[in-house]
Amino acid sequence: MLASTDDSLSAMAPLPAPEPARLLETTASLDARKLRFEVNRLELPMGVEGSFGVIRHPGASLAVPVLADGRVVVLRQYRFAVATRLLEFPAGTLDPGESPLSTMQRELQEEAGYSASRWDSLGAMLPCPGYSDEVIHLFLARDLTPLVERPPGDDDEDLEVVLLEPAALDAALAGGDEYLDGKSVTAWFRAKQLLGI
Amino acid sequence: MLASTDDSLSAMAPLPAPEPARLLETTASLDARKLRFEVNRLELPMGVEGSFGVIRHPGASLAVPVLADGRVVVLRQYRFAVATRLLEFPAGTLDPGESPLSTMQRELQEEAGYSASRWDSLGAMLPCPGYSDEVIHLFLARDLTPLVERPPGDDDEDLEVVLLEPAALDAALAGGDEYLDGKSVTAWFRAKQLLGI
Repeated sequence: MLASTDDSLSAMAPLPAPEPARLLETTASLDARKLRFEVNRLELPMGVEGSFGVIRHPGASLAVPVLADGRVVVLRQYRFAVATRLLEFPAGTLDPGESPLSTMQRELQEEAGYSASRWDSLGAMLPCPGYSDEVIHLFLARDLTPLVERPPGDDDEDLEVVLLEPAALDAALAGGDEYLDGKSVTAWFRAKQLLGI
Repeated sequence: MLASTDDSLSAMAPLPAPEPARLLETTASLDARKLRFEVNRLELPMGVEGSFGVIRHPGASLAVPVLADGRVVVLRQYRFAVATRLLEFPAGTLDPGESPLSTMQRELQEEAGYSASRWDSLGAMLPCPGYSDEVIHLFLARDLTPLVERPPGDDDEDLEVVLLEPAALDAALAGGDEYLDGKSVTAWFRAKQLLGI
């Protein structure tokens, strides 16, 4: 059902209907680049009122890129917020007006140096549903072609490209000598389901 | 190597050494309950300077509780930030001075109504490494006992307890009619690795 080619991704089943809390007042907010942090007085659906902090985020996309020989394309990327380098799949924040698939096609070229001609949806994941409205759109990218020259990405990105056998990626995640990047493990779980590996 | 009982969790391999960015100045900040949002001027390890928003979070714990018959204990929990109810494993934020395991033993009782006598570490996951320093400590909880009376939890929690066969949980995550909660899918991936299922 999920198999697709080119830009035509098959529709997945509908996600649950939204059930918003009632916004009584935004008491404070702060902006930083593409992020906005708000402190909101809310009435929750269960009737309780309270003050809650939340990140407003434009959304993002992530791809699990799989080469013809079965190896996956992973990044070793520096993350200032956690002061370390993580194993992650290529991903990026949506630009205004950009579709999740377009974002991912751009980021796969900028971050990993590949284009892909076969795309499947792996669903939508929520990295921090307790305090961020960010939705990350997950994709499986196949029929990869290495670019002769990688287009320029963000100038504060600090990453290297790593090619791993699926068993080596599984072992890295099981070994306890890596922090587990939530979006990447979630996408890998779904990719393994779709690929049947 | 990871098997353990009671409070003595076997040590996992060391995580990568920290590589902090240099904090030049905090230009703004906002507090909301246990969260603090900061806008920081940083010098990244690669030498680039810039202004970055970050959530400071006290950390959290999550458990995959598995019953003797193989079913897992899952919550259907309302999350205001994403305006919907999600399938999640029991989890909670660390209180000051509380260890990750103690937090989880408390939350398993408050949220799910179970105590557990067998605990294994499933490693540490980062839900939003792009803009939050939160670390979630993952556990597998076995030898479960239902409590006669559930202790009171937070008064803004809105959840119900669901018991699922592993295959039913896998199907829910694959079906596309659920948002994927990053911490829960990551923990389930690791639990399946440890359990060999």
